[in-house]
Amino acid sequence: MSTPTSPQDTFVHGRLINLVRTGQAVTRPLLEQETGLGRKLVAQRVQQSIDVGLLEDGDLAPSEGGRPSRRLRFRSEAGHIFAGLIGAAEITAAVLLLDGTLIASSHEEWAAADGPEPTLAVLDGMFDKLARKTRTEPWAIGIGVAGPVDFTTGRLVDPPIMPGWDGYSVRSWFRDRYDAPVWVDNDVNLMALGEWHRGSPNDGRDLLYILLDTGIGAGLVAGGRVFRGDTGAAGDIGHVHVTDDPASVCRCGQLGCLEAVAGGWGLVRELTPRASESPLLSARLAARGTLTPEDIGRAAAAGDPLAGPAVLRSSRVVGETVANLVNFANPGVVVFGGGALRAGDAAFEMFEATIRRRVTRLAGRQLSVRRASLDFREGVVGAGLLAIENLFRPDSIGLWIEHGTPIGRASYLQRAAAG
Amino acid sequence: MSTPTSPQDTFVHGRLINLVRTGQAVTRPLLEQETGLGRKLVAQRVQQSIDVGLLEDGDLAPSEGGRPSRRLRFRSEAGHIFAGLIGAAEITAAVLLLDGTLIASSHEEWAAADGPEPTLAVLDGMFDKLARKTRTEPWAIGIGVAGPVDFTTGRLVDPPIMPGWDGYSVRSWFRDRYDAPVWVDNDVNLMALGEWHRGSPNDGRDLLYILLDTGIGAGLVAGGRVFRGDTGAAGDIGHVHVTDDPASVCRCGQLGCLEAVAGGWGLVRELTPRASESPLLSARLAARGTLTPEDIGRAAAAGDPLAGPAVLRSSRVVGETVANLVNFANPGVVVFGGGALRAGDAAFEMFEATIRRRVTRLAGRQLSVRRASLDFREGVVGAGLLAIENLFRPDSIGLWIEHGTPIGRASYLQRAAAG
Repeated sequence: MSTPTSPQDTFVHGRLINLVRTGQAVTRPLLEQETGLGRKLVAQRVQQSIDVGLLEDGDLAPSEGGRPSRRLRFRSEAGHIFAGLIGAAEITAAVLLLDGTLIASSHEEWAAADGPEPTLAVLDGMFDKLARKTRTEPWAIGIGVAGPVDFTTGRLVDPPIMPGWDGYSVRSWFRDRYDAPVWVDNDVNLMALGEWHRGSPNDGRDLLYILLDTGIGAGLVAGGRVFRGDTGAAGDIGHVHVTDDPASVCRCGQLGCLEAVAGGWGLVRELTPRASESPLLSARLAARGTLTPEDIGRAAAAGDPLAGPAVLRSSRVVGETVANLVNFANPGVVVFGGGALRAGDAAFEMFEATIRRRVTRLAGRQLSVRRASLDFREGVVGAGLLAIENLFRPDSIGLWIEHGTPIGRASYLQRAAAG
Repeated sequence: MSTPTSPQDTFVHGRLINLVRTGQAVTRPLLEQETGLGRKLVAQRVQQSIDVGLLEDGDLAPSEGGRPSRRLRFRSEAGHIFAGLIGAAEITAAVLLLDGTLIASSHEEWAAADGPEPTLAVLDGMFDKLARKTRTEPWAIGIGVAGPVDFTTGRLVDPPIMPGWDGYSVRSWFRDRYDAPVWVDNDVNLMALGEWHRGSPNDGRDLLYILLDTGIGAGLVAGGRVFRGDTGAAGDIGHVHVTDDPASVCRCGQLGCLEAVAGGWGLVRELTPRASESPLLSARLAARGTLTPEDIGRAAAAGDPLAGPAVLRSSRVVGETVANLVNFANPGVVVFGGGALRAGDAAFEMFEATIRRRVTRLAGRQLSVRRASLDFREGVVGAGLLAIENLFRPDSIGLWIEHGTPIGRASYLQRAAAG
């Protein structure tokens, strides 16, 4: 096996693999055509990719005049990605193939407010169990967190619902434990990415994901990439100003934020003192001493006279804000996701109707509004896709191949051998 | 001169020229390094570019160990771009060099509501005069219009302030008259592009341009490219809903649109019946029978007791909407442009202060808010840059060179010869 030595060589090699992986060019002649490289060089690099197990020869492609050529297949099963999603009250872990197919996952309740180190230890324990079960080790790790992330450093920045995490580098924590590259992003960005790649088909159109849960956030995938903005804060719509009502003080300290009026925690604050108006909510409150956003959603789905109208109003207010964002960003698809999905059809219908009423004719003309389709897994799938996207950047993939094998997880192997 | 024959050849050639043009690789060794192509091929393609006049050899670059090599220079004076901006009430035409430097321009008052054909004939007449004056012909043409554009076809879509233009292809009209490619986009997108490339330095950060004029619009340049959205409607913020006040019926038929409350035409509608409260405005009204947004802006700048507070309120309402967009899109720079610049410092200061008060800490942390810096030329400069950007796409630039010379303007030459 010949070894690439120069940066441009490894880049070219990475580019070839990606052309096959993304389906843009899947035969050697098409690769020559797409890259402008000679037949010999393409054949050499393809063979090298086959040797390391990333590509394989498949069936014959239909001839286009010349000799028929073999179709190349990207071996998505060649390696695995570990993905984690850290929410305010729960952690999800998953193992994915190199095309984003989820092959195993687990879920635990956990308060991220307990701080980064204990929380990451829990996620790492979940990774361990999944690794044993699936007999895999990660080529790369993707993590989503419920707060703004400085994408270049992987550090959280002022996360309002993850106190104690400000400035903490999730990437460093995992890098110290795994011989694998780690990428970290905001959870809603990853939900958008997960829905865009693996959710209901969208013809590659720009997708705006709206998370309506305890908090409220948005993620935009435009041109196939997460739109992050200048400092990684894009999509932070929870604190859009929607009212001057003096009762709407937000947990951020401002008045009239969208979250304070329409987010799950805002609804809990509003309905708790009025729980006696609802048999369902007053029973929950008596039994546990507090209400949760989920209590309110389930009560609304059951037709509760207090929770029902409150949830509808929340969907309407969020829909009004989203209509403004649709006018501004003109996405092809708006996806409604998060715990509000459990509040019944009426919540989604109000959301969609409000958007359609408020958007301009041009922005609304080809707009599709739908529910999230990955059964609450879109965030962890998106975290995996983030890792895949970065792992296969042409400038980095060539480097692995120089090392002869993809990146391994030394510490896992040691522990597995010991235990 | 050897002639490239295959698509990948022309693509590679285009890529080389662009690497020099954008300053990414400006010597032959750097071009080899960047592209992975061999020394001989790079030398051949560079020589070809020199032969057609797009590149030239410059001074010696500092040596990096090996033999010092000549720095290549992109000859931005090799060709010219014609650019036009069609507003509701005025037309601007300009001639630019291939790097976006404006070398001549002209301006005429004209009502676009008179319809596409007479309007485009006026613009073409302006192009003719500029062509004679500068002794140039266009390699490409860029046009901005005050309405949404389907970018792939160059057709206007439902332009609210250009009645009679719906579905009209500005591109076809110019293509029939010039042997040059034509690109058409929304005017605010182009203002954003113009400010991003040629306005005050911005370190390449994402730029959100806000046009506050007769109407209100936004343009976003993200990652160096205009953000157009799914159907070319991105940035259409004039119809964001900001109030339920029954007096705020918009020209679009909806209630409470931003334009109706804070746009120039909304202010005219609001202040005309109250003009007697203002000596300045009542004099204008008596003299001409109507007020214009410009009258109100100038009155505000002069400290008028009626126009002053109305303009400040407009800046505040627009600032509130823009703060929401900043939270969502997290740009690095917000630019305040349009006729509102003539309303005095207070309007801009209110705009900036409102944004700073309303944005989240993370989105506001490194945000710069400034006035448009190109003296109302940013739109026409942006139209030229649009043409340049597309003309130099690697897949199209190679094609010119195959033709031996860049694209000329046959009809102009004929007319020039005749007249």
